[in-house]
Amino acid sequence: MHADRTKILTDTIKRLLRRNALPHLKKIVNKTHGADLWLVFPAIPTANQHKLFKLIEDNEQKGILFSEMDEDTFFDFIEKMDIDELVEVFEDMQNDDVADLIGKLPEEMGAAILEKMKHEESEEVEGLLRYRDDTAGGIMVPDFIALKEDNTAKEAVASIQKDYVDVEMPFYLYVVDEYGKLVGVCSLRQLVVVSPDTPLKEFMSTDVVSVETSMDQEEVAKIVARYDILAVPVIDSSNRLVGIVTVDDVIDIFRREATEDILKMAGVGEDFVETKSILKSTRIRLPWLFASCIGGIVAFWIISHFEKSLYQYTYLAAFIPVIMGMGGNIGTQSSTIVVRGLATGKLNIRDIWSVVGKEVAIGVILGLVYGTLIGLVAHIQYSLIAVALSVGLALICSMSVAALVGSLVPMCFARINIDPAVATGPFVTTSIDIISVFCYFKLATVLLRI
Amino acid sequence: MHADRTKILTDTIKRLLRRNALPHLKKIVNKTHGADLWLVFPAIPTANQHKLFKLIEDNEQKGILFSEMDEDTFFDFIEKMDIDELVEVFEDMQNDDVADLIGKLPEEMGAAILEKMKHEESEEVEGLLRYRDDTAGGIMVPDFIALKEDNTAKEAVASIQKDYVDVEMPFYLYVVDEYGKLVGVCSLRQLVVVSPDTPLKEFMSTDVVSVETSMDQEEVAKIVARYDILAVPVIDSSNRLVGIVTVDDVIDIFRREATEDILKMAGVGEDFVETKSILKSTRIRLPWLFASCIGGIVAFWIISHFEKSLYQYTYLAAFIPVIMGMGGNIGTQSSTIVVRGLATGKLNIRDIWSVVGKEVAIGVILGLVYGTLIGLVAHIQYSLIAVALSVGLALICSMSVAALVGSLVPMCFARINIDPAVATGPFVTTSIDIISVFCYFKLATVLLRI
Repeated sequence: MHADRTKILTDTIKRLLRRNALPHLKKIVNKTHGADLWLVFPAIPTANQHKLFKLIEDNEQKGILFSEMDEDTFFDFIEKMDIDELVEVFEDMQNDDVADLIGKLPEEMGAAILEKMKHEESEEVEGLLRYRDDTAGGIMVPDFIALKEDNTAKEAVASIQKDYVDVEMPFYLYVVDEYGKLVGVCSLRQLVVVSPDTPLKEFMSTDVVSVETSMDQEEVAKIVARYDILAVPVIDSSNRLVGIVTVDDVIDIFRREATEDILKMAGVGEDFVETKSILKSTRIRLPWLFASCIGGIVAFWIISHFEKSLYQYTYLAAFIPVIMGMGGNIGTQSSTIVVRGLATGKLNIRDIWSVVGKEVAIGVILGLVYGTLIGLVAHIQYSLIAVALSVGLALICSMSVAALVGSLVPMCFARINIDPAVATGPFVTTSIDIISVFCYFKLATVLLRI
Repeated sequence: MHADRTKILTDTIKRLLRRNALPHLKKIVNKTHGADLWLVFPAIPTANQHKLFKLIEDNEQKGILFSEMDEDTFFDFIEKMDIDELVEVFEDMQNDDVADLIGKLPEEMGAAILEKMKHEESEEVEGLLRYRDDTAGGIMVPDFIALKEDNTAKEAVASIQKDYVDVEMPFYLYVVDEYGKLVGVCSLRQLVVVSPDTPLKEFMSTDVVSVETSMDQEEVAKIVARYDILAVPVIDSSNRLVGIVTVDDVIDIFRREATEDILKMAGVGEDFVETKSILKSTRIRLPWLFASCIGGIVAFWIISHFEKSLYQYTYLAAFIPVIMGMGGNIGTQSSTIVVRGLATGKLNIRDIWSVVGKEVAIGVILGLVYGTLIGLVAHIQYSLIAVALSVGLALICSMSVAALVGSLVPMCFARINIDPAVATGPFVTTSIDIISVFCYFKLATVLLRI
């Protein structure tokens, strides 16, 4: 839906809400796709959101809205719903989404809902709840086709038509042995092409990419993307096929992870805060700025130590911004490249020294270029070789160190399994600020023989 | 493939290359998936990459490697290939990928290749080349099933088995009218469930989401993600169905766009530079730092103007880092939230004033908190109310202005259709630096009555 179509829909709904034209609203709400309706929600007050939600007749549409909501909004909505209504909606949702939502509920409420759900559904959900929701086990769905390796092509076709009519999108036909262990994969087309009496194990491909239930969802997503497949089979610790992770979930994982990384790099937590209230977002952003505040106080303390130099050569102060700014920016460049490189697989932790070495080399070159430039500006202004030299050298130092810190810190974090994205942003910038300021004043003090 | 499996593969290949064990290498290379082999390439020198590539027998695997390569690497590889070899590989690749690669080649070479390709294939590629490669038309594939609306369910099934055996993944069955215009969609399951003589138009769903050939690929990707569909049909300006965009391309688009955005925000161009040579990456990063350099010179010039104040109160200089740092960090927070919010659709350009207003409110609150804190530090250190007040007020100013600039600039850029990601990073940080420094010295001069 285009931006203007969303706007038209939003305006119409707002107008009808003002006039409280319930029958009209009901008509519109029920012919609009849940995903489109969700786009309208931010523009209307919460009370009206609840009113619209109540008007939806199709449980599937309600489910779509549920799966879009963040935790707080979801709680707001279900507070006013009774448990039977909730159960009805859950029964029409994908079981992996249901498991996600139930995992967020208070334990008692979750249990009560599972109790009321159809046996088959609740069993599947409970199965999923056993896995962490950021692992393959937590995001898999049980909608897959598993054929026996000893079956013939003809028997397989019959089994698909009989046992698996419910599988909406038969991406791949997996083949299992008598113990349910995944042994191969074949395509619908193969089943039709081979002679009907050929057993599956004679023509299936045994080269099947699979993931374990405990694998981190980001890893799973990377595998699906790398091999350009529509679904990846999930196996338990004894190799039994227990589910598949489909490509639509993979898209969501990538988008969420990218957002998380970007937000972490800027030091704003990992959830999207703009849709939260002012006070809530302030609370989330406050601590991240604290690093920068402490860094500022340290820099203040360093500069105070050089007060004598500053008193003799007041204009030294004028170069603080350019030295901090250039260091900070090249440091951000380096850490961003490393963080994103690691996330997309273009860089590898193993290559830590070649990556850091390259970054430092670039830092030195860029430091020479800009150090010379700013040194010249200083010389023109004050005709004092020692000042020009201090400023120029400080820039070279600051930019090389920034490139070193900016690339080394996220690499080390990744090696010890801390998310490298947290290593950039406030922390890296702040330490670079401190180092830059110190180098500058130390150099100036030595060169100006204060 | 796990990191350690990649490591084992890399080590084995390196060892065999050292011993020049060609038969062994050939075996390994040909039983490894192209996507896995690609992960080994960064660890070995270019000459050896070419050697391995030559050993690959399956053109499809060569094609996978081609589609992973960036432009420079691709040129390196094809330089040593003759045109017939290239044509063979291209014929086994997806036509949208071929169109991408041919679009990069010199015109003559592209024409020569198209000339040699099978007529049917080259026609499809030429068709794709007519569209910009970042639009729906440039990324669509022609592998779709289009059934006639007047056909019965029985005729439709026959037509699928006869005309469309080549379609690998029949995601959806599209329905067209006599002019080829897209009028509906139905599922394989529906075809089986209804009575065989029912015409498609009686049970197809007419509510089909489609995109035009000229739509930007990022928009297309958002639509596929929003409606959780596996493919979206592409129509030309007269509503005729001409192709589909599949979900695997959508994943690539999202990943690429996220990387581009992150790199742009850090001011390192939009291509991933770490895999390029040191000199090349330096050249790409140099101009982005120039903004920050110019900003530094302006800040220098502003501070020089306040030399008299600095001379009297030397320690004013000591607070420059904290004021710049806090402003810079909150500015980065705001711009990151806005850029990512716009990219994921969580924020809308229409809401410019509510978003900016909220950011400024947060900036003021955080400014009050940290202004008070740093003001107190200043007071403890120098017991001079005027200094504490200047520092505190300067922080409030700097942080509010930073939140304003950080949120307003990307919003405005988005409104005039400039990528908001370029608006963050060096440009925003630099202007915030300048404004912060100016406010600080202006306030100090007034309050200290210099």
